Amino acid sequence: MERLLVIKIGGNIIDDERSLSGFLKDFSSIQEPKVLVHGGGKLATGLAEKLNIPQQMMEGRRVTDDETLKIIIMVYSGYINKTIVARLQGMGCNAIGLSGMDGDLIRAHKRVHPTKDYGWVGDIDSVNPRFMQQLLVKSLTPVIAPVTHDGAGQALNTNADTIASSIAVAMSKLFHVRLIYCFEKKGVLQNLNDENSVIPLITPEVKDGLLREGKISEGMLPKITNAFTALSSGVDEVLIGHASDLHQNLSDKPVGTLIRKA
Amino acid sequence: MERLLVIKIGGNIIDDERSLSGFLKDFSSIQEPKVLVHGGGKLATGLAEKLNIPQQMMEGRRVTDDETLKIIIMVYSGYINKTIVARLQGMGCNAIGLSGMDGDLIRAHKRVHPTKDYGWVGDIDSVNPRFMQQLLVKSLTPVIAPVTHDGAGQALNTNADTIASSIAVAMSKLFHVRLIYCFEKKGVLQNLNDENSVIPLITPEVKDGLLREGKISEGMLPKITNAFTALSSGVDEVLIGHASDLHQNLSDKPVGTLIRKA
Repeated sequence: MERLLVIKIGGNIIDDERSLSGFLKDFSSIQEPKVLVHGGGKLATGLAEKLNIPQQMMEGRRVTDDETLKIIIMVYSGYINKTIVARLQGMGCNAIGLSGMDGDLIRAHKRVHPTKDYGWVGDIDSVNPRFMQQLLVKSLTPVIAPVTHDGAGQALNTNADTIASSIAVAMSKLFHVRLIYCFEKKGVLQNLNDENSVIPLITPEVKDGLLREGKISEGMLPKITNAFTALSSGVDEVLIGHASDLHQNLSDKPVGTLIRKA
Repeated sequence: MERLLVIKIGGNIIDDERSLSGFLKDFSSIQEPKVLVHGGGKLATGLAEKLNIPQQMMEGRRVTDDETLKIIIMVYSGYINKTIVARLQGMGCNAIGLSGMDGDLIRAHKRVHPTKDYGWVGDIDSVNPRFMQQLLVKSLTPVIAPVTHDGAGQALNTNADTIASSIAVAMSKLFHVRLIYCFEKKGVLQNLNDENSVIPLITPEVKDGLLREGKISEGMLPKITNAFTALSSGVDEVLIGHASDLHQNLSDKPVGTLIRKA
């Protein structure tokens, strides 16, 4: 099986023109099959402010009413997705921008919660790996916005980290997948204040040891838990690293944190 | 060669929920290969107003500065395109929403004019028929937003009527193409005030006769001229009719105006 890179960039890269520009240059030069998943950044919040649509966060999720969903689709599926695709095209990368409704790529359902209503927030049911493969065999590079649909006509706002891991899992039946989360730190740090304390490799044994010794900071725990969930569902490797280290992090000797089963 | 329907809906349908809903239902039930091209409608103007971004029209085109381009991409490639795709998916039509940058579908250049600057308005250079065919053979239905790119990283605002005819021409090498313009009248009228004065068939001879007799109203002339340009570039038939007459207008006995070479 061939290797597939599923690479996720967050809002902090999208919001910073210099970071984004450097990242897209690096990304476009990758010759392997690859998928880019992007988050949203501050643009949606900024547009909501200008339009006087109050925004409410609940446990890290944006409560998504009708007007907020409109903004999410305009900014994520529209502005961010299409400007990234146009720029990648300008760099010689045959990108195709997609949201979950396109080609029925990602189905989700409105979040069910016993007491809270998140509005049009979607939790993923399934990813269509065959459609994605049809694009990849034509040397197209999918660029995915964090918007899904319920299959009955409704668009849904969905977490980009979860979209990246769901795509990685779905594609792992067809490819050896390395899932790469690009963020603002060099990797999983033993000491949050020391950029040079990157833990190079985390296996289940290493993780247990680190947890026992209290050496994983709380903010990193969800990322690592998610990574192991992806690994247990078929993904070969998860890498957490800085966006500017993308090229090194594709290699066998990454500078970020590689998370593997063994 | 198989038949391909290239169907264009304008802003007046998009702006009216009842018309759009009926149209999408009719469109989704078409079993033949088909492409939908949509215009923009009043949503972009409304958003520009709310954001206090002054809009300027010049000879029917929206002068497109940086901020206006952002709105165009958000509304056309984002909101309108993705809500149409989600709704078609809900009706069992495997739609995929695309703008000109996606898969390098439509290349254009910034409009060149001796005295006027239209901003980021793009005139089409080429359409990628092979990419479109790859989607059609997988039973996908492309839904195209009126946004193109210059191949060097720049998105451009492009007329939806022109996109529809350029796609029809490009696809005519691979399919028998019927290009259908859905608008708010039943067809080309001899008398603008009489909805029942639809001219059923226009051939070059009929056109010459109508022109001699002054029986084509001025507003209709550009549509007919465009239609004959498409015909002379390989399109089999152009049909101009009402959105609600879509099903009859797919048949050999359309109720709109059929424009053919002979």
